[in-house]
Amino acid sequence: MTNSLRITGVRITPVAFRDPALLNAVGVHEPYALRAIVEVDTGEGLVGLGETYADEGHLRRLRAAADTLTGMDVYALGAMHSKVAEALAGDDGAAGSGLTGMITTSSAVDRVFSPFEVACLDLQGKAAGRPVSDLLGGAVRDSVPFSAYLFYKWAGHPGGEPDDWGAALDPDAVVAQARRMITEYGFTAVKLKGGVRPPEEEIEAVLALREALPGVPLRLDPNAAWSVPTSVAVARRLEGVLEYLEDPTPGLAGMAEVARQTSIPLATNMCVVAFEHLAPAVRQGAVQVVLSDHHYWGGLHRSKQLSGICDTFGMGLSMHSNSHLGISLAAMTHLAAATPHLTYACDTHWPWKTEEVVEPGVLEFTDGSVQVPKGPGLGVELDRDALARLHEQYLRCGQRNRDDTGYMKRTDPGYEKKSPRW
Amino acid sequence: MTNSLRITGVRITPVAFRDPALLNAVGVHEPYALRAIVEVDTGEGLVGLGETYADEGHLRRLRAAADTLTGMDVYALGAMHSKVAEALAGDDGAAGSGLTGMITTSSAVDRVFSPFEVACLDLQGKAAGRPVSDLLGGAVRDSVPFSAYLFYKWAGHPGGEPDDWGAALDPDAVVAQARRMITEYGFTAVKLKGGVRPPEEEIEAVLALREALPGVPLRLDPNAAWSVPTSVAVARRLEGVLEYLEDPTPGLAGMAEVARQTSIPLATNMCVVAFEHLAPAVRQGAVQVVLSDHHYWGGLHRSKQLSGICDTFGMGLSMHSNSHLGISLAAMTHLAAATPHLTYACDTHWPWKTEEVVEPGVLEFTDGSVQVPKGPGLGVELDRDALARLHEQYLRCGQRNRDDTGYMKRTDPGYEKKSPRW
Repeated sequence: MTNSLRITGVRITPVAFRDPALLNAVGVHEPYALRAIVEVDTGEGLVGLGETYADEGHLRRLRAAADTLTGMDVYALGAMHSKVAEALAGDDGAAGSGLTGMITTSSAVDRVFSPFEVACLDLQGKAAGRPVSDLLGGAVRDSVPFSAYLFYKWAGHPGGEPDDWGAALDPDAVVAQARRMITEYGFTAVKLKGGVRPPEEEIEAVLALREALPGVPLRLDPNAAWSVPTSVAVARRLEGVLEYLEDPTPGLAGMAEVARQTSIPLATNMCVVAFEHLAPAVRQGAVQVVLSDHHYWGGLHRSKQLSGICDTFGMGLSMHSNSHLGISLAAMTHLAAATPHLTYACDTHWPWKTEEVVEPGVLEFTDGSVQVPKGPGLGVELDRDALARLHEQYLRCGQRNRDDTGYMKRTDPGYEKKSPRW
Repeated sequence: MTNSLRITGVRITPVAFRDPALLNAVGVHEPYALRAIVEVDTGEGLVGLGETYADEGHLRRLRAAADTLTGMDVYALGAMHSKVAEALAGDDGAAGSGLTGMITTSSAVDRVFSPFEVACLDLQGKAAGRPVSDLLGGAVRDSVPFSAYLFYKWAGHPGGEPDDWGAALDPDAVVAQARRMITEYGFTAVKLKGGVRPPEEEIEAVLALREALPGVPLRLDPNAAWSVPTSVAVARRLEGVLEYLEDPTPGLAGMAEVARQTSIPLATNMCVVAFEHLAPAVRQGAVQVVLSDHHYWGGLHRSKQLSGICDTFGMGLSMHSNSHLGISLAAMTHLAAATPHLTYACDTHWPWKTEEVVEPGVLEFTDGSVQVPKGPGLGVELDRDALARLHEQYLRCGQRNRDDTGYMKRTDPGYEKKSPRW
């Protein structure tokens, strides 16, 4: 009477792709970014795709969860979430993890569940002949606006060749980076990853961007590198300049204190990274914009849930990004397209990567936006040669866990992770 | 590349079905309950079903909205919600309406959108060969528990024959009604519609139920008939007896005051009936349980949204019921099945009706629960003869808007609608 579509197996392939020496508040990106590509097989021959982090603890948890999913129907997402929770119940390492550098209190269950949910939605869409955005309530926009993501950076990795973008360590170089990124991708909003240079220099960089790019919405994200007084002092200087200030200072209480003293909306992907953080954040008035991320909010349905909560409680919504490949960009685009309450252009690290695992042609930036893929499911296809190549690169590169701080220390032995730093 | 499934037309058929003389805080049920059956046609020959209120203002708004939906894809639910909002923008009567007797501040857009959304999900499910619960994340339970819904009632309508249930105006008759309903349907939770007799008598009735049905969860719903002091006094007498007390007093502020003075969780389907009420309710700590209802919360997806908000903000969730037919029972069952955070048995008026528009056999109560329909879509089929008969009854009966108070006044000219009454 109804069609069945059951999981017959799950393949998890860790990959490594080249990443420039991008600087942040805890160090510098290593030569490779790690991701895990998840393929969910079904009896019908359809394969669903997901993409997630690839640190060792996460890979172990992914595999533990995957083992319990065989035989499940690809529509049974609620039951699957419970299965993942059961599979991880005994995993002591699940709570804390350095997998995203600075996101350590998100729900391990939601992180592990996410790529399976995305893959199952890909399968549901392929089976029904509909794009994933349709399964999420339908696209309310044809294309999704993303923001340019500027980084302070070294010219190249220590001991390596300079990359194509060159160094960016002062306001002029930041402006040059913005101009090139806008020329090549058409971005209409710009974020600067801060927390790298002393606050006074980062204010200068933002003011230089303001002058160079009149009317373009600007954001600054120092990743909690500042104390409350520093945050307030910077905010006062940048009122009327920034559309939002992201995670100036650690913790909900500190964010709430800063929020009380500035008119700039405060955004976060550090102090509100799980559903349990929302009630205290609302109670304290700590954040005005939540940066969602389906990789740790438990997939696309739960991210839509988050957007509804933000809408209901008067908070804005945008989207956070780690370094990612095309499966994730497709998922992010479908989700954002089907999210009516999306109040800012989304983040993406996309321009910084030079390697890919999906077939080209679907995910293109036009005027800073990505057209919502129209094919069934996510609308992207795996390039199996590329997957094999990037997996080989993973095996060779020796990186197994993200460690921006440790990598920085190899160049600057006195470097220490500190939050707040200034 | 993908399949299209577009709306070619919408049929809206008002129906009337016989309803017993059930008493509530604003009067008495009229001889017929009114509903509108919504059929959404597609080019593929598939028809989707929805069910909603049928007062004249709502019918006018349904028709205005329906006219704008032709040509839309049945997956474009987000865009459809916007279309409905546009269609109703000029409707002055949209804000207030007596359609559900006591729910007048819910969103007109959500009320009008709901049956179209349900019908489109029915179509999506039929097209994909999957039950609606699968489209909502998958059933996390095979069957959905409902509560017996006890009413004070007259033996029959004025001037008419007594109905099969007879009068219920004192504790003994209420207990007898409960026993019969449990015998016939197997309910394992019991609600008494209160606000009808003086509070002291309703306390007696609840205590009689407690004695007669040890261990069975009990609820009392006086529909805001009591002042804050009366509510607190009743609550103090029923602590340890009721699993929740529903809408003892009008308004969030009053509810919050009662909540501070009793350990019984307060439930509502009167002061939190739209997304805009949630933030103030949370801020004030006014309610501990929200009774969702897809008919006014904007359909099944938005009701899932509501459940996520309740889960996130530490509130319980159950389900409200008006008098309804099988299309709605199917929708309620799919929704409840796919809602992990459902903390109490749902409400239903089901046993009180003797007429139906769907083919029999799918929706049966066993041990107080309804098995989740397994067929594609909602899993129910329209009985066209029954639909024609109940539509004919609508045309003949003369009722056009629900008016429990006016009907009561015909028997008791001195009766007045008052909240609070005691």
